[in-house]
Amino acid sequence: MQRILNKDTVSHKGEKILVKGWVYVRRDHGKLIFIDIRDRSGLLQVVFNPKVSADAHKVASDLRSEDVIEVIGKINERPEKLVNLKMGSGTVEMEATEVKILAKSAPLPFDIGKETLDVELPIQLDHRAITLRHPRVQAIFKIQSVIIDSFREYLKSQDFFEFQAPSITPAVAEGGSEVFQIGYFDYKAFLSQSPQLYKQIAMSAFERVFSVNKIFRAEPSSTTRHLTEIVSLDAEMAFIQSWTDVKDMAENVVRFILRRVEKMCKPELELLKASLPAMLLKTPTLSLTEVQQKIYEHSKRDVRGQKDLNPEDERTICEIIFKETGSDFVFVYGYPTKQKPFYVYPNPKNPEFNEGVDLLCRGVEWLSGGRRINDYNQLMKHVKEWKMDPEKISMFLDAFKYGVPPEGGFAFGAERMTMQILGLKNIREACMFPRDMDRIDKRLSLEKEDV
Amino acid sequence: MQRILNKDTVSHKGEKILVKGWVYVRRDHGKLIFIDIRDRSGLLQVVFNPKVSADAHKVASDLRSEDVIEVIGKINERPEKLVNLKMGSGTVEMEATEVKILAKSAPLPFDIGKETLDVELPIQLDHRAITLRHPRVQAIFKIQSVIIDSFREYLKSQDFFEFQAPSITPAVAEGGSEVFQIGYFDYKAFLSQSPQLYKQIAMSAFERVFSVNKIFRAEPSSTTRHLTEIVSLDAEMAFIQSWTDVKDMAENVVRFILRRVEKMCKPELELLKASLPAMLLKTPTLSLTEVQQKIYEHSKRDVRGQKDLNPEDERTICEIIFKETGSDFVFVYGYPTKQKPFYVYPNPKNPEFNEGVDLLCRGVEWLSGGRRINDYNQLMKHVKEWKMDPEKISMFLDAFKYGVPPEGGFAFGAERMTMQILGLKNIREACMFPRDMDRIDKRLSLEKEDV
Repeated sequence: MQRILNKDTVSHKGEKILVKGWVYVRRDHGKLIFIDIRDRSGLLQVVFNPKVSADAHKVASDLRSEDVIEVIGKINERPEKLVNLKMGSGTVEMEATEVKILAKSAPLPFDIGKETLDVELPIQLDHRAITLRHPRVQAIFKIQSVIIDSFREYLKSQDFFEFQAPSITPAVAEGGSEVFQIGYFDYKAFLSQSPQLYKQIAMSAFERVFSVNKIFRAEPSSTTRHLTEIVSLDAEMAFIQSWTDVKDMAENVVRFILRRVEKMCKPELELLKASLPAMLLKTPTLSLTEVQQKIYEHSKRDVRGQKDLNPEDERTICEIIFKETGSDFVFVYGYPTKQKPFYVYPNPKNPEFNEGVDLLCRGVEWLSGGRRINDYNQLMKHVKEWKMDPEKISMFLDAFKYGVPPEGGFAFGAERMTMQILGLKNIREACMFPRDMDRIDKRLSLEKEDV
Repeated sequence: MQRILNKDTVSHKGEKILVKGWVYVRRDHGKLIFIDIRDRSGLLQVVFNPKVSADAHKVASDLRSEDVIEVIGKINERPEKLVNLKMGSGTVEMEATEVKILAKSAPLPFDIGKETLDVELPIQLDHRAITLRHPRVQAIFKIQSVIIDSFREYLKSQDFFEFQAPSITPAVAEGGSEVFQIGYFDYKAFLSQSPQLYKQIAMSAFERVFSVNKIFRAEPSSTTRHLTEIVSLDAEMAFIQSWTDVKDMAENVVRFILRRVEKMCKPELELLKASLPAMLLKTPTLSLTEVQQKIYEHSKRDVRGQKDLNPEDERTICEIIFKETGSDFVFVYGYPTKQKPFYVYPNPKNPEFNEGVDLLCRGVEWLSGGRRINDYNQLMKHVKEWKMDPEKISMFLDAFKYGVPPEGGFAFGAERMTMQILGLKNIREACMFPRDMDRIDKRLSLEKEDV
């Protein structure tokens, strides 16, 4: 007998079929036992009636949460007043005639049968295998997979080529304090903080490239916004006319992702009570100086001339722009050249400011990018001014000797975007197996080993 | 003026258009200068005739390989005898009227304008930014991206969910000699050798999962088959009836990948003179014991009773099966239980052999998988017998307390498969930025630093 998924049972009314899954919730009403069985497609209500099958009812009477079972039974239409529209299969139920236990579960350390998982995040993470079974937790990762897929899909439609950026790197291009060191045979190596240099090399051969890869940050901070291992969505494109080509591509990617999430994740968004941010046809775009002026005019906080936006500035400008235009998004460009990495292109008309650009949404930076220097001599000049060791990035610098077109790119983190879209309070909720300075699966402070 | 890609010039005959790209090959015939310009879509021949534009001709006379240019000119049909079918745009050429240099190139250390790149692999890798521009090198990575995309596409069509497996792990499940250690704040951590335990946890919640992620192997060997950083294509599925469900899924994935590569990569396969391996509708499937018997009968080498196949055995059995059936593939199942990881399911009828299965092709193992133990008590028994520390994999073991269905999965390396499909001699050719014990971008022996 072929297994039918719970969501497909509605097209098997009156038939005797086989379903498989986990006991999610059990309710006893007199002699009847009601079990919501969960599979990858959703829930199905199964009724065990001793008059229909005494054997099945007997087995069911010992079932508990998360036991794995297979059930054979007849799919019946539910009476109209018992229809449950929250359940995909809520117009039907199964009348069980046979049940078999495939695996027993130990008692759960907490109840996962409620609509909201009423457990502190650290405890949730201590028991990841259990919490991953909760529909709201699953919804987060389904949406995240749509975000990542959509990034890929849109860029492929724009002729971008996906390459595999390495995780092990030989040297640290920009400072070394926030990087993880690896013992690499008789040498030392480092975990990649960004595929920046590799994507520029790949771009110099393939023109348009992207990568979905892990980056690693050893920042010793345990905030709700930091992870040590992140999924970075990176893109780089050659033959741009101006930094605004990069901005437009980034805007289109984000727009495509939001549309896809809206279209493909309706039930998940509802479950999480999330509302997608509003993106206009043309996202407001301001220079850092203009942003600082606006903040000054609206809030009387004088941040004019500051070198960057702090978190409060980011919140304020997003509020102002939303009030003025209805856009949840705002691009900010033109940061002080010296404040940013050596490869960012300085504005030729005013080289003190660069052609880097950030996308803010709802008070937080979502994405960072801009035009890069493509001329070898200009790049070498910056390497010197930034006091970098050209030996450490020689493979990267060499690429620019051999003809690199005007180019730019952008990057954003999948977990950050997931967190922001869904309004999650902690980035750890947007990562299946989050790593931070206190945790790799288990809490590190519980370990006895040291280096 | 909007840029037209080289491959699209054929639909602009008689029009004046703009193209951009790299000077690939230059030939001077009397006063005419012919330049093959390369962009992401392929090559286009551009003719600089001093009678058409003296200015453009003058600029062209100083152009050299890998200079980046934009050219405006008229697209003309080529006379029939000058048609070049090796070039996508070989039925046309451009008559240049304007040319602008976007970036100059230094002289190349070797010629990349020939059909075959006549440079030793270490030198190719020393100059990755240059060799990545060669059409045959690009063809390798285009095919690799199709392999990875097809893996994803097929499994998604079968309701598998993509999750992000972590790279940083807290402990080493199975022995620690071939693992890279990371300094992780005040603790030690390790680079993941396999997402095995994580994919089983994710499967226990999502039923069918896959991941495309990096794995890391610190094997101190510099063969043509080893890399330290690999793209692993991993899948795991719940509610299997038998290990053959896993084998069938693996077969279907490989078949889908081969078909996709055949369909989408015709020019690349031709360029690389590669022929795809033959897969029958039903791949021959033999137990290890049967394989050993066959090898004995055909070669008189008595390997019966050996614990595994060695490379020579793998070559021999593939030759035998190909002669007997025409299949380049053969599944081998039923390895000695004690020789394999603790989580592989023992055959209930003969527990000395397990329900693990490998897929061999053309003399080499492509893929490894099988049924896993899903019962907590059985798993704990194995943990003890294998003398493992349950503390180190407690998150994994805990998952099996709470109801895990019968399940299995498989994994294979993207670089290995690329190498095998294309008949490459060294796996480093199938990796854009290969890492091995002697190289991370640059050759490590040239570094002066040590740990």
